[in-house]
Amino acid sequence: MSDNERLEQQFRFILEADKEKSILRQTLLSNGKEHENDADHAWHMALMCLLLSEYANEPIDVLRTISMILIHDVVEIDAGDTYAYDAQGCATQRERELKAADRLYSLLPPDQGEKLRTLWDEFEEGRTPEARFARTLDNVQPAMLNNATGGAMWRRNGVRLSQILSRNKNTAEGSAALWQYSFEHFIQPHVREGNIRDDAE
Amino acid sequence: MSDNERLEQQFRFILEADKEKSILRQTLLSNGKEHENDADHAWHMALMCLLLSEYANEPIDVLRTISMILIHDVVEIDAGDTYAYDAQGCATQRERELKAADRLYSLLPPDQGEKLRTLWDEFEEGRTPEARFARTLDNVQPAMLNNATGGAMWRRNGVRLSQILSRNKNTAEGSAALWQYSFEHFIQPHVREGNIRDDAE
Repeated sequence: MSDNERLEQQFRFILEADKEKSILRQTLLSNGKEHENDADHAWHMALMCLLLSEYANEPIDVLRTISMILIHDVVEIDAGDTYAYDAQGCATQRERELKAADRLYSLLPPDQGEKLRTLWDEFEEGRTPEARFARTLDNVQPAMLNNATGGAMWRRNGVRLSQILSRNKNTAEGSAALWQYSFEHFIQPHVREGNIRDDAE
Repeated sequence: MSDNERLEQQFRFILEADKEKSILRQTLLSNGKEHENDADHAWHMALMCLLLSEYANEPIDVLRTISMILIHDVVEIDAGDTYAYDAQGCATQRERELKAADRLYSLLPPDQGEKLRTLWDEFEEGRTPEARFARTLDNVQPAMLNNATGGAMWRRNGVRLSQILSRNKNTAEGSAALWQYSFEHFIQPHVREGNIRDDAE
């Protein structure tokens, strides 16, 4: 493979990845107006990883974790964003995302396609300290924004506390400190204020 | 300082950084419709760094380079985006950005504020292999998008080749290979097609 062929494959993937910027999430930005997109979300998580790695339960390789974070939503280019509390969407999510991963990572030169696919699989499985921490940030980041907008999206979608706790059942595994902070500062106040429906008793 | 005070300072900065997602750049996304925001741009550059570091002229520390990339536009939260070809804006850019850096990085615990400020200074000065490569990506990424949209923003803003060459006078210093590819594949075709005004003779 000539250098140019390799670069062409790399740029084909890099340009395709641009589409992540148009995939909107349920989460509102802290201004309460616009929806966050997938690239925004990944950038924010990567910045959080840089600043908050000291709270990981186990030592983590920060570059590996950030790499995982940067690419964790690439599959949504084909599969779309699946809202955490959309049961129907969640039922088909895995199948849609596997098909997307096959197509998207094969745009890259094989060595890099395999490297990124391995990172994505690691994130999905959540069995390494890096993947556990990345998944913690994937849950803490939107909780922080939902809190910043007065719990607007929780209220609008009628989200119940039991759903949030189920979604976050492994969040403490990446970082007990961040889960505790997130629960006390970002979630609990909205249970008290009724923005999150308290069905956990 | 208690752990909670430290975390509160960290989250204050992380939440403030959310505003980067609403700062629009001149660049259009590859769909030719929406404008790219600062967080989109930083995420895309970080992904490029992960995939293209092999083309750096000198060996680089990828984590350090990605860290620099992730925070390189934080100052625009206060200073706004300055279009590369807006001479008036460029004249006051440095002053506005220095003031912004003072305010924003002081939201963080001092050790992290200093760390990020040092990274930003390093990026601005462009004297290390990491900073040179990050600055190369900062120029190659929008050229790639401008090419993907048929040179729309160059045409709309009446950009001249001499301006692009001046803007890119150091791009080859981070990566000769990426500058060559970018010039041949992203820029030259638009000189031929008249989307970039050829005033370089």
